[in-house]
Amino acid sequence: MTRFALTIEFDGGPYMGWQWQDHGPSVQGAIEEAIFKTTGEKTLVYSAGRTDAGVHALGMRAHVDIQKPLPPFRLMGAINAHLRPHPIAILACEEVDPEWHARYTCIGRSYEYRILNRRAPLTLEKGRVWRIGPEMDAAAMHDAAQLLVGQHDFTTFRSTACQSASPLKTLDRLDVRREGDHIIVEAAALSFLHHQVRSMVGCLAAVGLGRWTADDLQAALAARNRSALAENAPPEGLYFVSARYP
Amino acid sequence: MTRFALTIEFDGGPYMGWQWQDHGPSVQGAIEEAIFKTTGEKTLVYSAGRTDAGVHALGMRAHVDIQKPLPPFRLMGAINAHLRPHPIAILACEEVDPEWHARYTCIGRSYEYRILNRRAPLTLEKGRVWRIGPEMDAAAMHDAAQLLVGQHDFTTFRSTACQSASPLKTLDRLDVRREGDHIIVEAAALSFLHHQVRSMVGCLAAVGLGRWTADDLQAALAARNRSALAENAPPEGLYFVSARYP
Repeated sequence: MTRFALTIEFDGGPYMGWQWQDHGPSVQGAIEEAIFKTTGEKTLVYSAGRTDAGVHALGMRAHVDIQKPLPPFRLMGAINAHLRPHPIAILACEEVDPEWHARYTCIGRSYEYRILNRRAPLTLEKGRVWRIGPEMDAAAMHDAAQLLVGQHDFTTFRSTACQSASPLKTLDRLDVRREGDHIIVEAAALSFLHHQVRSMVGCLAAVGLGRWTADDLQAALAARNRSALAENAPPEGLYFVSARYP
Repeated sequence: MTRFALTIEFDGGPYMGWQWQDHGPSVQGAIEEAIFKTTGEKTLVYSAGRTDAGVHALGMRAHVDIQKPLPPFRLMGAINAHLRPHPIAILACEEVDPEWHARYTCIGRSYEYRILNRRAPLTLEKGRVWRIGPEMDAAAMHDAAQLLVGQHDFTTFRSTACQSASPLKTLDRLDVRREGDHIIVEAAALSFLHHQVRSMVGCLAAVGLGRWTADDLQAALAARNRSALAENAPPEGLYFVSARYP
């Protein structure tokens, strides 16, 4: 038995999310099926994070245990071949220690949220960004975002379906920058609550549009109440970027 | 009658190309239909360039004459609304002099070609780049590309269906750079022959892969013969970026 660590890129559009679901296709299910076609083995693929329906990944990390002896490069090529035509690709594959766990060994996760700030409809970036028409102030968003950095009770920014034991999380970084018509939000933490990034981005968008002040954001955080949320940003602008390990 | 200049972005994937065709959908046809729904007028939309099937545009320029008096901003909004669900968007619309012509007044056109240089299959960039597996040398591609800059007989890099009166063209710029896994080729000229950018990129790819030397590229140019071409790069990596006017 060998444990392999995988780095995975996917377009989340066609899936119910990362995790296996009985009512629709999942990224996990597609990869497990491709592994079954490769090795004939029923496996469980564990990931660093569970992404929601429509959320993308540039560098999701995961692990899987395989009985059949295969060099990592060949295993990766075979899984990729069997994944077609799924918009899911294994970018890297390496043997790791059997103690290494994609979720429990992970010491940091980062996400990126992409807004396209323009009036014109989406063409090439349809399903890849959140389009917001009125002009936004990215500098004001970045300044307000710093209020959320550090350890807080993020109940306001947490899905009611969140299964985390505690609403206390430590946000390491929340940066907002403008690149032409795009506004990019980068978030990093040991871990996030369910919907936390999308909920934070929804409130930052309210700040960027001048509907909320930084004080309003501060009050929403202090309320520790989901009803204080401005808006949950849509999933198609969210990307799981990377997971860190010791 | 007012002449409007349009700036247009589109995903070329679903279309037979820019120009109206009787055997499939075209970008021009979709825009003319949206204008008809807006004003009730049958119009002809003239563009700075004609793109092939599958080729995209970030900033195509075009013009159209409209009888109905409409402010440019309202016209743009109405065309965009009627274009749905086409992946075509009018990014800008302004009144211009009736002498202004998107094609004949144009004094420069620029294209970008995007290669994704990696083994893993495409996911989020499917239909947006040319994926090439083996590692490429972008610096060698850039150096070789400089052999094509200037005035040359580009017969080797010209489609047999090209309708241009002469194969002589002056290439102002052909730059190749690497950005992570991406290799970006930028081309600028007063005008291009049919398939010229894709044919040049196909040969530069041969250089990047070490299959061709810069001397081979020089010989292909000197051959002035289509059969000396290495390869025509696929359309989905090509973007019409901008057109310049006095």
